[in-house]
Amino acid sequence: MDERAALAMITDQIDEAGDDAAIVDGTAITIDMLHDSADFPAGVTDRTMGWRSVAVSLSDLAAVGADPVGAVAAYGAPTFSEGALTAFVTGAREVCDAVGTEYVGGDLDCHDERTIATAAVGRVDHRVGRAGATPGDAVCVTGCLGTGAAAFKLFETGKIERANQLYRFSPRIAAGRALAPVATAMMDSSDGLARSLHQIAAASDCGITIEGDLPIDPALREFADTDRLATTFGEDFELIVTLPEDAIDDARARVPVDLTRIGTVTESGVTRDGDPLPDEGYVHDPD
Amino acid sequence: MDERAALAMITDQIDEAGDDAAIVDGTAITIDMLHDSADFPAGVTDRTMGWRSVAVSLSDLAAVGADPVGAVAAYGAPTFSEGALTAFVTGAREVCDAVGTEYVGGDLDCHDERTIATAAVGRVDHRVGRAGATPGDAVCVTGCLGTGAAAFKLFETGKIERANQLYRFSPRIAAGRALAPVATAMMDSSDGLARSLHQIAAASDCGITIEGDLPIDPALREFADTDRLATTFGEDFELIVTLPEDAIDDARARVPVDLTRIGTVTESGVTRDGDPLPDEGYVHDPD
Repeated sequence: MDERAALAMITDQIDEAGDDAAIVDGTAITIDMLHDSADFPAGVTDRTMGWRSVAVSLSDLAAVGADPVGAVAAYGAPTFSEGALTAFVTGAREVCDAVGTEYVGGDLDCHDERTIATAAVGRVDHRVGRAGATPGDAVCVTGCLGTGAAAFKLFETGKIERANQLYRFSPRIAAGRALAPVATAMMDSSDGLARSLHQIAAASDCGITIEGDLPIDPALREFADTDRLATTFGEDFELIVTLPEDAIDDARARVPVDLTRIGTVTESGVTRDGDPLPDEGYVHDPD
Repeated sequence: MDERAALAMITDQIDEAGDDAAIVDGTAITIDMLHDSADFPAGVTDRTMGWRSVAVSLSDLAAVGADPVGAVAAYGAPTFSEGALTAFVTGAREVCDAVGTEYVGGDLDCHDERTIATAAVGRVDHRVGRAGATPGDAVCVTGCLGTGAAAFKLFETGKIERANQLYRFSPRIAAGRALAPVATAMMDSSDGLARSLHQIAAASDCGITIEGDLPIDPALREFADTDRLATTFGEDFELIVTLPEDAIDDARARVPVDLTRIGTVTESGVTRDGDPLPDEGYVHDPD
């Protein structure tokens, strides 16, 4: 069974699963696992690793509209160096500071492959998941797509400093909080835009059509196959949100980043400019 | 730098670190990482793995006196089978049910070595950590020691069913909640009794003396070196607690498991029956 089929099976078994974070009694909880061979290309600094690992969990909180309470990490590695751990903690703290929460520690584990697990906890006033999109709603995205793909390409081509900058993305906590009261469905774009749209459509039992140009990170424009990378690569952490058309202007005024309308919720089918948009993610190997 | 030195360094850097769970705004958060080569001897079932992984994080909540809100897990493995995942979720749910909380899902990750990260979240009314032990306090332990060592020995000797039973330990949530209002210091015994006592003594800037027989799991008695295993092996998840002497009777009445007095908090030095008790844990390899 592949990872997607396995996730689908677990989502069926656990009522609270299926959104970016589970919510119990108004508390949002999420956990993620990253490791060298899949998630950290050569050139990622320890500070970036701390930032990004924690940011991935904070992005899950953003996607359910949560106000973060704190984040923790478990750091598994064959050896521990003071410099690496201090840099990791620095990055973890910086991203928590950036969204107004606290990095409060975690655990260490001797592990053959460097493996980082992170968890974040938040409070939720307006619960939003993937299941409420309604035909006629607008589909919007925060910021721009393709940042994760650009970072991977920059690591590949040795532009390490710029790649690290892009890899230290800003979790869209403030945007998630501002959107939650009006959003009908929301998730982050970590699996890529195409797969995210299919997941919202499946959870909400609706369709989605997107049209026109997408907001694409300028950093990606120097590479080939830009549109495909921006649509399917993933490793982006923007919010994909559906909301009533008449709520867009007000949402835009309250969201502190660009909010671009990319499409409309329909009755069925996920399409782009009239053609079916395949439910595919890019298979990427950072080595 | 070894794991202990690295943990000490991180504890110095992060105010909230140092206790079994971090506490922010009345919310306790903990994360743990377990993996095949260190934590799951041959013979551990998938159900036991789910139970124990989540139980380790719930034990951290117990140790700070928290009331659990929910628990999550990230499951990394080279392949996913429906049977294994279903059994894992069953075990994770059972231990949550056993302590009155909910298993609310998590994440999957393709990983060369099976690696489980768990996080648990709770609410704290009476904050208790490792730093408040005061000379004259009694030192008590819940349940009995050596259960983890007995399980490891039983796995080694092929008594798999009994070993799995012992491995599915009961996190001392109810005991932790009952003890928190009177405890001056508390932690779980996952690093072994000896190391736990040293950690409380160091955090509280005091000494501890223990005297007489320890409550030892009858399952361990069939093996050699019982006392040493019960004292230093770890992989036990009882609570080690210090509390004023005149609070013991009342605590005993409210704690739903045995609460055995094993010693007294002193000014300095960690001793057993008058001799120094080394700050040592057993190095164990489950393979």
